[in-house]
Amino acid sequence: MRRLVIFMGCAVLLILIGRGVAMAEVHTQAVEYRQGDTVLEGFLAYDDSFTGKRPGMLVAHDWTGVGPYVKGRCEQLARLGYVAFAADIYGKGIRPKAKEDAAKEAGIYLNDRALMRARVKAGLEELKKQDLVDPGRIAAIGYCFGGAAVLELARSGANIAGVVVFHGTLSNPNPADARNIKAKVLVLHGADDPFADRKQVNAFIDEMRKTDVDWQLVLYGGAVHGFTLPDAGNDPKKGVAYDERADRRSWQAMKDFLGEIFK
Amino acid sequence: MRRLVIFMGCAVLLILIGRGVAMAEVHTQAVEYRQGDTVLEGFLAYDDSFTGKRPGMLVAHDWTGVGPYVKGRCEQLARLGYVAFAADIYGKGIRPKAKEDAAKEAGIYLNDRALMRARVKAGLEELKKQDLVDPGRIAAIGYCFGGAAVLELARSGANIAGVVVFHGTLSNPNPADARNIKAKVLVLHGADDPFADRKQVNAFIDEMRKTDVDWQLVLYGGAVHGFTLPDAGNDPKKGVAYDERADRRSWQAMKDFLGEIFK
Repeated sequence: MRRLVIFMGCAVLLILIGRGVAMAEVHTQAVEYRQGDTVLEGFLAYDDSFTGKRPGMLVAHDWTGVGPYVKGRCEQLARLGYVAFAADIYGKGIRPKAKEDAAKEAGIYLNDRALMRARVKAGLEELKKQDLVDPGRIAAIGYCFGGAAVLELARSGANIAGVVVFHGTLSNPNPADARNIKAKVLVLHGADDPFADRKQVNAFIDEMRKTDVDWQLVLYGGAVHGFTLPDAGNDPKKGVAYDERADRRSWQAMKDFLGEIFK
Repeated sequence: MRRLVIFMGCAVLLILIGRGVAMAEVHTQAVEYRQGDTVLEGFLAYDDSFTGKRPGMLVAHDWTGVGPYVKGRCEQLARLGYVAFAADIYGKGIRPKAKEDAAKEAGIYLNDRALMRARVKAGLEELKKQDLVDPGRIAAIGYCFGGAAVLELARSGANIAGVVVFHGTLSNPNPADARNIKAKVLVLHGADDPFADRKQVNAFIDEMRKTDVDWQLVLYGGAVHGFTLPDAGNDPKKGVAYDERADRRSWQAMKDFLGEIFK
């Protein structure tokens, strides 16, 4: 009889927990803010089923700007218990679709790292202002172009806990700035990435080895550029392709990293 | 009242679970076996609190042979639910203590990869024979010299699920053999390892990139050779040093990897 009561009690608990999960909702909204005179439009996501202040995650977009991809990543991060904010580097409404336009837009910031830093920092400040964010616990992640953006944020000496770079642009016109990095750095990279290639990876390693930065680099065999982008197709020969295995593993590596820096 | 019953019931369950954990015991024993005419002595560990057949983990020792270090790792693996077996590459009683002796002994096998393969394969066969092991679910891990041993096991075409290499010797006198690898490969390496240095790491990457092997490489910034060895001291300038951070992270990376290959 007692066992039955225990069983029934635990069953009731499980049902209540289950309902709680089903009722959880990820709240999302566009957020307008500025850097200098430029109007930017980011995207905020958090999960109502978590309570109280929580770590904030800044998400830097790939070369297409704040679109469905980074918004989806923000929602995933929200479900993990973070307040996620996709920073807008390009400016409100600038969401290039064609490759040529995206490359041109990304090039503006890759060739003007001071402007890139200003834009990503504006996103960081906006994230810190959010009521639910614990401003002492912030990390940033970036995809492709956004990888360069979060690395520049770190190189600016930003006082954040960590940055995670997924198939990022690793080039650095000012290698000595690596010494300013306070954040822990995790770079998740395709071993066959032809855009951020072996030469660029080795230059990044050389740069990091001259510092006291806490950094890690993971190379995923067989993966090319854009390996976390489901829309990138599945032909690695094109140099950009989705790789389910590397996507899953890199997300796990990010979760381990965040678990460590926010414990 | 009902809540109290649920609470009491759950408390009783927790106490019972707690007692189960407290009663769990890691069983360990020396195991004598042979390769050709050579008598070898390995070390077996499993946890009695797990039931039924389970994955087997082959552990390849560093250059000091089967000693307290790898035995401790076997016990850790046993507590994770694996049957762990430290293979003896050197032969019963050969446990060099002085560096010169260890280097000399390791050199025999590093210069005779066929013999190294025969010895590590003998360990694999011994592990597979154990009653509690599911012979279809086997992985191998190796430290330093043992990293070379498990890589040679993989290069021999062994039908195992994965190999994990901690600060391993990555040199390969027969690079084309990398194509024989069936196991998934995870290499966990110090970015400042002066023994398996950048040149060796880059050669390993080149070797892997010519194959279809599922491989991953993690570089830990600031870590040198032997970063998981608590007895290695804490002066990276010596080229060998313990690094608590890289030790913890590499163990987590191994657990994620095993979770994936044995799911």
